[in-house]
Amino acid sequence: MDRSRIVFSGSGGQGVITAAIILAKAAVIYEGKNAIQSQSYGAAARGGATRSDILIADSEIHFPKVIQPNILVSLTQESYNTFSPIIRPGGLLLVDPRYVTIGTKVDAKHVALPMYERVMEEIKKPIVFNICMLGALIGLTKLIRPESILKVLETTIPEDFMDMNKKALDLGLNLGEAA
Amino acid sequence: MDRSRIVFSGSGGQGVITAAIILAKAAVIYEGKNAIQSQSYGAAARGGATRSDILIADSEIHFPKVIQPNILVSLTQESYNTFSPIIRPGGLLLVDPRYVTIGTKVDAKHVALPMYERVMEEIKKPIVFNICMLGALIGLTKLIRPESILKVLETTIPEDFMDMNKKALDLGLNLGEAA
Repeated sequence: MDRSRIVFSGSGGQGVITAAIILAKAAVIYEGKNAIQSQSYGAAARGGATRSDILIADSEIHFPKVIQPNILVSLTQESYNTFSPIIRPGGLLLVDPRYVTIGTKVDAKHVALPMYERVMEEIKKPIVFNICMLGALIGLTKLIRPESILKVLETTIPEDFMDMNKKALDLGLNLGEAA
Repeated sequence: MDRSRIVFSGSGGQGVITAAIILAKAAVIYEGKNAIQSQSYGAAARGGATRSDILIADSEIHFPKVIQPNILVSLTQESYNTFSPIIRPGGLLLVDPRYVTIGTKVDAKHVALPMYERVMEEIKKPIVFNICMLGALIGLTKLIRPESILKVLETTIPEDFMDMNKKALDLGLNLGEAA
């Protein structure tokens, strides 16, 4: 696919924006693509829902906003209810069943993966939930190489935290590839 | 002003993107405004320069990109050289003299404040340089209230780090108000 239109949504504190920044950087710096990543804040932000858009393309990007994502990740019921209607028909909708009960009205490939549960079982640190989600997304879509995510992490987080992040990415990759 | 068009630029690791996210959140959650904050990655990102755009408005925002900022912050010479030509004539250009030597060709109000030096003298932690920059910007422009920045920090960073961040914000405010 020449162009990926992605929306990550959830609540403040789930690391949705950080995950979006990591994904965009990885695609650009280590895979030679172009990317724009943005947050729109407004009434939704005041209510607690967070949305971050990522556009990744081989060619230059002119309009920086995602209208209809072909990939939507929703990590809370509120964000699922708000954003699932905008998904491109036939798109991929990734949720965590701990937080989201899937509706039936949306024309999309729904994938529910127990990312939070696996992170808590294996790593016991909710802070890497967002990295597990990135792993799951890459396992499902092959959007970019997992190594590119690891390289971004290596340049942005302290070395002591790399093990935990690598484990979370691997957990997600395994979940995504098996789905 | 109904609409502020802001660009933060520098190099990876200076906290430019984090500062942009904090500013946008503060404006929306604690001041009732609308905001869009974005990063464009591409050739520039591969070379190490980081740019983050923030649009803050009382009314709804339709086009999410900043074409001509009325406020530009440049924290490296490379980012200054790259982005100073796009500033709106008569706009505000904030730099740190440790990193940037100002050129003369740009129609803007140049303000050079020794933010990095003051942070290292008083706090000795370069990690809060970006918060000092936010303080300086607010001291200069009264864009939003400093308390709104502190409230965002309180919900996003561990309590142990609040003192250091508050000090950095105050250092910046004093520099900006005295300029």
